[in-house]
Amino acid sequence: MSRIKVFGDSISGNCLKVKWTLDRLGMAYDWIETGVLNGETRTEAFLALNPAGQVPLAVLANGRPLAQSNAILVHMAEGTDLIPTHAYDRAKMFEWLFWEQYSHEPYVAVARFQVRYLGREASDLDPKLVERAYGALARLDDALTGRDFLVGGRLTLADISLVAYSRMASDGGLNLAAYPALRAWIARVEGALDLGPYVPG
Amino acid sequence: MSRIKVFGDSISGNCLKVKWTLDRLGMAYDWIETGVLNGETRTEAFLALNPAGQVPLAVLANGRPLAQSNAILVHMAEGTDLIPTHAYDRAKMFEWLFWEQYSHEPYVAVARFQVRYLGREASDLDPKLVERAYGALARLDDALTGRDFLVGGRLTLADISLVAYSRMASDGGLNLAAYPALRAWIARVEGALDLGPYVPG
Repeated sequence: MSRIKVFGDSISGNCLKVKWTLDRLGMAYDWIETGVLNGETRTEAFLALNPAGQVPLAVLANGRPLAQSNAILVHMAEGTDLIPTHAYDRAKMFEWLFWEQYSHEPYVAVARFQVRYLGREASDLDPKLVERAYGALARLDDALTGRDFLVGGRLTLADISLVAYSRMASDGGLNLAAYPALRAWIARVEGALDLGPYVPG
Repeated sequence: MSRIKVFGDSISGNCLKVKWTLDRLGMAYDWIETGVLNGETRTEAFLALNPAGQVPLAVLANGRPLAQSNAILVHMAEGTDLIPTHAYDRAKMFEWLFWEQYSHEPYVAVARFQVRYLGREASDLDPKLVERAYGALARLDDALTGRDFLVGGRLTLADISLVAYSRMASDGGLNLAAYPALRAWIARVEGALDLGPYVPG
């Protein structure tokens, strides 16, 4: 058995959520910086570990690879207080994790990627992409109105997963001014994870 | 406690995977046909149950709603042989479930939707969409070469989730001729679920 390895790109919210979860759980790991923009996820060696060619990728203590950010979170946090023990709360946590990958990340993270890393003007983004990004942010704001965390009144993987790109939304030209509950929750989750506020690099 | 209700559209693979799982588990439920194409997922009553405006939506025996097809599958199948007991196998099952929603459904299902329900010619699909759909199918074919099922040598939620749109791929003009392991697995999973082969309506 060796230490967990995480192949990740520090500019990626999907990768950072794995780091935050491991840090929160006090688990030892080696972070292997692996660049998306410079092709390091497309080398033959990396594709042998993850045929999907994506980071994050964890190599577990038993040497076996595991991909998909939220699947890594669930595996690492099994049996901890980041996963609710009550069956319905746990199901809702999974609902948010799947929603994040299907209805939030493809818009909020993609807007950021296009503006910040491809150099596109925010005003030139596909209007449908922007509409869906705001739709996702508005839905989060609704869900968080009157609630401290997404599920069961305490920090779970749903918060860690969804805060990753929500806190970076301004990088994609998205304005959170209309979403006070979302902004308060971002600060709350950042506090719980000891992150400090996001500073666009 | 009342019976589980499933709001679903029978043309949707995401909805059918919930039906197949409940049938496989021998669980009683009421299916409430809810059309995506005729606006039934956008009524005020439906949005009160699922603010995301998507089917499938389950209303559990305790009356509480649960959305996201794969989250419903996980909740319904907890403690059954459709979820591996071995931690790594279970983690790989989750990897496939998240990959399905992020890297398979948005291409394979969307190609089908555009051709079959929006009346677009397959030859007019966005070439990037088609390339990514074939990328997802090729990755499945690779993973299934020499394997009967995706994880742990037996039927799990990963197979049920991924077979849903894979078996309908031809609806979107996608040709599975180059993927023999994928085709054999589709037939195998259909057999395990007592479905019979898919017949495009």
